[in-house]
Amino acid sequence: MNTKYNIKKIIIEKPLKLDCGEIVEKYPLAYETYGKLNDKRDNAILVFHALTGDQFVSAENPITKKNGWWSYVVGPSKPIDTDKFFVICANVIGGCMGSFGPSSINPKTNKEYGTDFPVITINDMVNAQYNLLEYFKIEKLHCVIGGSMGGMQVLQFVANFPNKTKTAIPIACTASHSAQNIAFNELGRQSIMADPSWKDGNYYYLKSSPDKGLAVARMAAHITYLSKKGLQEKFGRKLQEKEDLNFSFDADFQIESYLRYQGSIFVDRFDANSYLYITRAMDYFDLVKQYRGNLSKAFDKSETKFFVISFTSDWLYPTTENKEIVIALNAAGVEVGFIEIVSDKGHDSFLLDVPDFLKTVKNFIETNYLK
Amino acid sequence: MNTKYNIKKIIIEKPLKLDCGEIVEKYPLAYETYGKLNDKRDNAILVFHALTGDQFVSAENPITKKNGWWSYVVGPSKPIDTDKFFVICANVIGGCMGSFGPSSINPKTNKEYGTDFPVITINDMVNAQYNLLEYFKIEKLHCVIGGSMGGMQVLQFVANFPNKTKTAIPIACTASHSAQNIAFNELGRQSIMADPSWKDGNYYYLKSSPDKGLAVARMAAHITYLSKKGLQEKFGRKLQEKEDLNFSFDADFQIESYLRYQGSIFVDRFDANSYLYITRAMDYFDLVKQYRGNLSKAFDKSETKFFVISFTSDWLYPTTENKEIVIALNAAGVEVGFIEIVSDKGHDSFLLDVPDFLKTVKNFIETNYLK
Repeated sequence: MNTKYNIKKIIIEKPLKLDCGEIVEKYPLAYETYGKLNDKRDNAILVFHALTGDQFVSAENPITKKNGWWSYVVGPSKPIDTDKFFVICANVIGGCMGSFGPSSINPKTNKEYGTDFPVITINDMVNAQYNLLEYFKIEKLHCVIGGSMGGMQVLQFVANFPNKTKTAIPIACTASHSAQNIAFNELGRQSIMADPSWKDGNYYYLKSSPDKGLAVARMAAHITYLSKKGLQEKFGRKLQEKEDLNFSFDADFQIESYLRYQGSIFVDRFDANSYLYITRAMDYFDLVKQYRGNLSKAFDKSETKFFVISFTSDWLYPTTENKEIVIALNAAGVEVGFIEIVSDKGHDSFLLDVPDFLKTVKNFIETNYLK
Repeated sequence: MNTKYNIKKIIIEKPLKLDCGEIVEKYPLAYETYGKLNDKRDNAILVFHALTGDQFVSAENPITKKNGWWSYVVGPSKPIDTDKFFVICANVIGGCMGSFGPSSINPKTNKEYGTDFPVITINDMVNAQYNLLEYFKIEKLHCVIGGSMGGMQVLQFVANFPNKTKTAIPIACTASHSAQNIAFNELGRQSIMADPSWKDGNYYYLKSSPDKGLAVARMAAHITYLSKKGLQEKFGRKLQEKEDLNFSFDADFQIESYLRYQGSIFVDRFDANSYLYITRAMDYFDLVKQYRGNLSKAFDKSETKFFVISFTSDWLYPTTENKEIVIALNAAGVEVGFIEIVSDKGHDSFLLDVPDFLKTVKNFIETNYLK
């Protein structure tokens, strides 16, 4: 995977104490940047990616040859305008796009870590990425932003570093992963671990990897990213290039071939062990518990100005859970805006062309930059 | 599977023309009855089971040694009172509890059918079960009732036999399987077919069967049977018999071990191929299309009195889809009652102790019996 393209990396030499207790002495963090850091060094925006995202936010992803995952949001004249702002995005630790992860080589064994990789948390991810500020000599970011797991990182970043960003935009996320979301993640993990090619995570040196299990995990997740209404409108009961049912287990319906395709392309770009580790980090995320049941305590030292965004048809991270963040921010006396965007596109709305969402992001980021 | 208990069966000698075009000359239908058929033969209720149900509606299931799946509803003094009514339930064709299914022996090969079994439909299931009326010499049933796939069979039964039941209660179902539901079923099928032990359906003579794939399919389905709120209230982020996270891929959260357990016990009582065939039948179900886009035509010859029941937190077969049935029945001039029961228990509400639901069923069945 990803060996042909020369991935940009920083080697972090400052030891990272993980939540599990282990200390990582030295590790790579793969990143990309877009736009230019200005002389005042005040125009930097740190983007956090979601579960299956990576550092290739905008322009062509050199691995997949497709547009970066946030091309609607980041780029010249886009809501995060790279003619004005300097955008940084790093692959999370635990990931498989060049950062320290289960497919990294363990110096003790000279083999890939596999499941010897430590279980990491959202907190660990954020602490690792904090080193980017030092590397780029940025005293204070203009904004931290991200959707889904990216939004969790936004919350954790401000909790850990209350005065290191002027603004923060958590999108379609939660302060505490719900039972239903844990359930769906566990389903994905069980699917991977049920694949005999997984071999307890030691498949890197073999010809086969747990692609079938990973594809099923991706299919399950993909259903949760879309809304019932959106699926019905896009696919309904439309048949796959034919007039009638074929009375077999081939893909009869368009939704079936769509899901099979989503599963099959995913395994080309993602590592099954990374899927296990990153979903585990999401499930462990509980900022409420970190602050002993009082979420507002996570933000009470913060000078960051927030804008929280949710989507009407997002059933994975519904508006109610996003509102809990708003309530906690208000309780902490932090300046916060909130909008629930009307969209039928489900949780995926933050990745798609949803004009009200795109306008909201642009306005908040630019208005607060002029001030 | 199910060989120790002497399962009651009728051998149907009347050929069954399936929707796929094949004709089945002779086939077994396994059934159970509860209560006594009265002299007027007017107190019979035909119960249709859901995807993973069987004929063991009430009392102890002789295979699993657990209570029958509808013990809250069927039994002495229960909403369907077996002191008053004669209840019949048959295992659907395609199933694995004694009726004609993929684990039946193909007389042409003397081996189990496996995927040589024809793809069957809800219509085929209902037409097979219609033979029960002849067998028990019942001119007209008092009621046909069922939830989920059982509800689909209720609708199909009345459409096919408009004057063969006095009343009908479709519960938590739909007249046309939605894209999201097809997607979740496809996920389950892909999980089974990805298991190397599936072997294109020819696993019966082998020591291993696709238990891992089937368990993951069951886990996925199980999440959809519960509501987000119900899961949060029952499990939330409660940990499994310990104080803190264990930073591994063991089951940390109670919801994880609950799902693993649900998957593991399911494979002991269900056949993976039956899961493929029955989910396919559900996905193919489209009573709207059968009546060329006009659902009310399905019922316009019917003299059956309906009562449609949905549950507030059922996101798999939401109230909107149940209401479409009510609208069509009204348009056809059929007498119909409707209630949306308030419950946090999701789609599974129809199987659980939900007092408003149980009272509704009892009232409708008994009031209409006196008339």
